[in-house]
Amino acid sequence: MNIAGMINPEQLQFFLGLLQLEQVKISEEERLDYASDETENYVFPADVVLLPNNTNEIASILKYCNAEKIPVTALGALTGLSGGALCVHGGVGLSLERLNKIISIDENNGQVIVEPAVITQVLQEECAKKGWYYAPDPASRGSCSIGGNLAENSGGPHAVKYGVTKDFVLNLEVVLANGEVIWTGANTLKNSTGYNLTQLMVGSEGTLGIITKAVLKLVPLPPFNKLLLAPFPSAENACAAVSAIFRAGITPSALEFMERDAIAFTLQFVDDVQVDLNGVEAHLLIEVDGTDESSLMLECEKILAVLEKFEAGEVLFAEDHEQKEKLWKVRRKVGEAVKSHSIYKEEDTVVPRFELPVLLRGVKEIGSRYGFQSVCYGHAGDGNLHVNILKGQLTDEQWSQELPKAIKEIFELVVSLNGTLSGEHGIGFVQKEYMPIAFNEIQLNLMKQIKQVFDPNGILNPGKIFPSSHSI
Amino acid sequence: MNIAGMINPEQLQFFLGLLQLEQVKISEEERLDYASDETENYVFPADVVLLPNNTNEIASILKYCNAEKIPVTALGALTGLSGGALCVHGGVGLSLERLNKIISIDENNGQVIVEPAVITQVLQEECAKKGWYYAPDPASRGSCSIGGNLAENSGGPHAVKYGVTKDFVLNLEVVLANGEVIWTGANTLKNSTGYNLTQLMVGSEGTLGIITKAVLKLVPLPPFNKLLLAPFPSAENACAAVSAIFRAGITPSALEFMERDAIAFTLQFVDDVQVDLNGVEAHLLIEVDGTDESSLMLECEKILAVLEKFEAGEVLFAEDHEQKEKLWKVRRKVGEAVKSHSIYKEEDTVVPRFELPVLLRGVKEIGSRYGFQSVCYGHAGDGNLHVNILKGQLTDEQWSQELPKAIKEIFELVVSLNGTLSGEHGIGFVQKEYMPIAFNEIQLNLMKQIKQVFDPNGILNPGKIFPSSHSI
Repeated sequence: MNIAGMINPEQLQFFLGLLQLEQVKISEEERLDYASDETENYVFPADVVLLPNNTNEIASILKYCNAEKIPVTALGALTGLSGGALCVHGGVGLSLERLNKIISIDENNGQVIVEPAVITQVLQEECAKKGWYYAPDPASRGSCSIGGNLAENSGGPHAVKYGVTKDFVLNLEVVLANGEVIWTGANTLKNSTGYNLTQLMVGSEGTLGIITKAVLKLVPLPPFNKLLLAPFPSAENACAAVSAIFRAGITPSALEFMERDAIAFTLQFVDDVQVDLNGVEAHLLIEVDGTDESSLMLECEKILAVLEKFEAGEVLFAEDHEQKEKLWKVRRKVGEAVKSHSIYKEEDTVVPRFELPVLLRGVKEIGSRYGFQSVCYGHAGDGNLHVNILKGQLTDEQWSQELPKAIKEIFELVVSLNGTLSGEHGIGFVQKEYMPIAFNEIQLNLMKQIKQVFDPNGILNPGKIFPSSHSI
Repeated sequence: MNIAGMINPEQLQFFLGLLQLEQVKISEEERLDYASDETENYVFPADVVLLPNNTNEIASILKYCNAEKIPVTALGALTGLSGGALCVHGGVGLSLERLNKIISIDENNGQVIVEPAVITQVLQEECAKKGWYYAPDPASRGSCSIGGNLAENSGGPHAVKYGVTKDFVLNLEVVLANGEVIWTGANTLKNSTGYNLTQLMVGSEGTLGIITKAVLKLVPLPPFNKLLLAPFPSAENACAAVSAIFRAGITPSALEFMERDAIAFTLQFVDDVQVDLNGVEAHLLIEVDGTDESSLMLECEKILAVLEKFEAGEVLFAEDHEQKEKLWKVRRKVGEAVKSHSIYKEEDTVVPRFELPVLLRGVKEIGSRYGFQSVCYGHAGDGNLHVNILKGQLTDEQWSQELPKAIKEIFELVVSLNGTLSGEHGIGFVQKEYMPIAFNEIQLNLMKQIKQVFDPNGILNPGKIFPSSHSI
């Protein structure tokens, strides 16, 4: 047997008594399967990985772990980008993979009840078959799960019109640290009944409870959309056009920014798309959607007028579904392409959207001082810029010792622009030491005390969100 | 001097030293001016009403009151419908009326920074002048203030498309019970950085802190809308049509339900509108809005097709701005009209929208058993039904002893339909004893512990939200 130090044989015996043998993963090989997410190259195996079948089993596991003070980290699809699911303190890795059912799609109310391991794209497709739309769609939507989306309050391209995960959550079934099970609210669109436990849980990264069911709202599926790709002679022009599109009265259903290199890297991975990068420093990918095609054409005309003012080059209109898919593929593959290009770190900066050009300029200036290359892209309509920092020619020492100072400068800039550290990836493990840039002691202490209300023994996902000086 | 028992002369001296004389209201007459909101006929004067000029003064007041354990109840425009601003434990009534500035309208980012006493309609009009839209619009929007809207998480007719107050809040400046001042988040559309203190504060009814500034998001002002009024031969048909409109792919910008009596009472107050009530048991007031007039006409056609299926009578299309205003006036005056008709109680029930016909039938059945008449109307698209219970011929004893049992039955029905006690009015003083219908001990204890984190001495708006068995 290959259990690390933290779980003793008696504790293991409890899990083996509670669950079937195949629900308890103890070999090193199995534990390594659950030891990494998509965050850089971290590997933190749990001492034991448990695969409960249902809420009751989770409740029993948590009740026991709480009494025994064993760390419990919820594991979803392991696509996270802030290390939220890394078992940094060992203990139990609680994989929710068996809670993977869409329990009901309520067509009359436009609501769905899902378990956490449902893949986001699967949910979207099942809803679409019935004419309903679940909008939050991280780039990883084909592999990420709703539970992870809830934990990190994930966004995606369509958040700019429809909102992020939190805006689609009505009610959550949650197993608390002591094994008690609650619902956080009601299955209603409006709710002014007591404190908003639902919104407290969303984005809390598995540190306040384990979400076992979610009631999500749906909106009518917009039957039409138009997609266009606009090249710009400068990245700043592209960023500046973003705010102007809203000023023209348009709320696009997506408004994505890609720096030249973001597309250049990606084109190496995508065979069937050509994008002319000659004289182009950045692109905006712009989508509008709605119930009437002719009104979308009018919106596109207004957008084109804005783009012209910011010296956009020839705008590519996606002509059919296939071409739209190709353009979206380019956008969705950027993260992966950058990752394959070099060791990298990704910062999930977010600012008020008009500040994007200032942020971009600042990132480049900081990069030039510290000697790193960055590739920037993201959800420009929301002011959410993913800053991918490439290791490139940096020495290991520069990477580990100097870069954190540069990242601190980036975040200080972000906060000075009224922005914050993460728009949709969460703080998790890799950003927690930067939290004091966004929050002072008073704010951090409030959060810490809330954590203590929900999890007095600190068993739930320890080592996340809070900086070392506040670690629980 | 006319101070009630709770504030002693030394304490009063502190307030007089901190503030100008005209900021300290101590006469009975002055205190009575602040002693009631729009909830039934309650009168609870504070021992002293303070009118601070700014955040600093509020911080000093709270620091002192926290040390002295003096209750502090924030007072806004006093238009609340759940008694949230009643000073039921006396102490300090903290009127925020002097914090009444729109600090900035940021046209580039589509954001506004406001102080709490800004009147909701004033904010809407100022934003509209610049092409931006702040959507939450309670019926009292001409007299209610943003601070109260934040405290109660207010909705209004346009919430069905645009969301309630919480959906427009990005960041809040809050004075904590101990006088410390924090911002809850960042001025960004997306935020996955620590626990969502912003959403915890919204709807907490002044029990967790005093909101002194709010950063609110705006959306582009939709230039066109269409408004139609549809009569139905039965209230249940009208309710059933609501869900069908969404099923037809339409998200209306308003979808209001009014029972026959709701309009009949109101027409007595509104001279310049005629509505034929012959054979009509209910109306739906339906609005769509957008950027293109012709596409709205298409949506209206789809809506008409749905209405026909549910046996709607002749639909009135508002022809111009004036006619639209008249129809909205009828809707907005319903509450006032019912209030003038009889002593009444208003329940702010909310259910998934397809359950509306079941709820309405249940309310009438409960009414017939307990012998009360009810007038129902509300935001049907959100499943938010205002149930106005008229005293009518009920004896005082029936009203005070029997009616609470009937209300309990109504709320039990609501909860059995996956709904909850309040959609937009809050729990405040008058609904708190019903909280155990919606929440069990585990949930209530979590909320109570959160309260204790923010307000360990229990000075902020005591006697609200929590039932007596949990009172803080």
